Amino acid sequence: MNENWDDIKNQAVKWVEEAGKMLKESLYKQLDIHTKSNPNDLVTEMDYKVERLLKERIEKSYPDHKIMGEEEAGRHIESTNGVMWLIDPIDGTTNFIHQKFNFAISLAVVENGIGKIGIVYNVMQDEWFTAVSGQGAYLNERKLRQTQPVTLQEAVLGLNGRWLAREKRADEQSLHHMVRRSRSVRSYGAAAIELAYVACGRLDCYISFRLSPWDYAAGLVLLKETGHLISTFQNEGVPLLKPSSIAASRPGLHDELLHYLYDHKGFDY
Amino acid sequence: MNENWDDIKNQAVKWVEEAGKMLKESLYKQLDIHTKSNPNDLVTEMDYKVERLLKERIEKSYPDHKIMGEEEAGRHIESTNGVMWLIDPIDGTTNFIHQKFNFAISLAVVENGIGKIGIVYNVMQDEWFTAVSGQGAYLNERKLRQTQPVTLQEAVLGLNGRWLAREKRADEQSLHHMVRRSRSVRSYGAAAIELAYVACGRLDCYISFRLSPWDYAAGLVLLKETGHLISTFQNEGVPLLKPSSIAASRPGLHDELLHYLYDHKGFDY
Repeated sequence: MNENWDDIKNQAVKWVEEAGKMLKESLYKQLDIHTKSNPNDLVTEMDYKVERLLKERIEKSYPDHKIMGEEEAGRHIESTNGVMWLIDPIDGTTNFIHQKFNFAISLAVVENGIGKIGIVYNVMQDEWFTAVSGQGAYLNERKLRQTQPVTLQEAVLGLNGRWLAREKRADEQSLHHMVRRSRSVRSYGAAAIELAYVACGRLDCYISFRLSPWDYAAGLVLLKETGHLISTFQNEGVPLLKPSSIAASRPGLHDELLHYLYDHKGFDY
Repeated sequence: MNENWDDIKNQAVKWVEEAGKMLKESLYKQLDIHTKSNPNDLVTEMDYKVERLLKERIEKSYPDHKIMGEEEAGRHIESTNGVMWLIDPIDGTTNFIHQKFNFAISLAVVENGIGKIGIVYNVMQDEWFTAVSGQGAYLNERKLRQTQPVTLQEAVLGLNGRWLAREKRADEQSLHHMVRRSRSVRSYGAAAIELAYVACGRLDCYISFRLSPWDYAAGLVLLKETGHLISTFQNEGVPLLKPSSIAASRPGLHDELLHYLYDHKGFDY
């Protein structure tokens, strides 16, 4: 296969835009009838609808590509051979329900396990983070800079505050040490957005104990194109067929983070 | 005195808009020369510039009003009698330097200690949170709803993640319990914005161990107009002449929060 990744990216952006409109409309509609509707029903319904819309579009144009989605697509996929699309129809579902703000559609295309296209669309802020492998990453029309090294003391960390408040465990102290040595912490509640924020420099790193491939596959392309380092807490490459811990950061910082994170195996919370 | 608060608010919005343009331009300029400039010099310079611009405009139009600002204005003020303006020229200075994003100008007008006008302007997102006492609060043109009660289990908490990672103290566990019982945690790194997010429903509460009156004075007006509760951790009214802890939340949630926060005296971090 010799795909034209630029064309595919441009096509995918149009599909994501269409899906984004659907999400916006569902919120406006829900605002009208908010006393009657159950927010959890809405997110379930819209997660499926967006995934199906994207899946249909992809299947029609690229019948030989694989598709893996958060809701239902690709449960049978056992290898990364060929071209695979990874879809997170609503990244940040709590934000979607609760804030009507700071949620994203995340879409990635990988070929034989190598990220080719990454799209993270922050729907309500209308921010497009896009990248095609080898061509750099963009926030809307602006090309993102190559990142530079940074130390933990200067770094603004992206992570979920709940991990700092867990029941006492022997390995918890290292997290607290890491946070105390940093400059500051931010939590936005949407992993794809937070990875995109690392790519564009709003965060110096993003750390998560457990994410699924559709959460981070698009972010990986953005991050690679901007010179960031990405690994599991045990400094291995992040997998595309199973959940994983993830540390994505500016150079220099990455080793410092793993020093604190290495003994954490990742967990559900 | 019989002030026309509507007119004053409209006038103040224009001044804040002017100051916002100044901040945006400083960032674009700094982006051009970013290898040479020290970000800390920029924030210091711009903090003073914005405060002085607003102070000059206020003094010219309202020579008998008092002015208290983060940088220099009003250090001598010892009473809340009369009309007082409270200015935070850059709320979220780390965000300003680091993210070029999610910082605000916060401006409040109080009369005899009662909030009359609150303006929080998130400069780069161009979001205006405004309120005039008795007339409701607005996000841009949209009038914000009166809030409803919520429980801790359903609540998205706004707080600084660093407080969850402090050196062990006897009273720290209660914070961790509170977070574990909540639905989720967000940290945006800009108190005035986070208070405005409570007012508009993006957060269910915002908690801080130590803020200054210029950080929260505008937020208080927004929150009062939307039916939120605001107090110190010891359930007292928050002061306008000295720093304080603050818990701002939806009804119902407020008592639950104070249960966990009451024994915290507030501290620097």
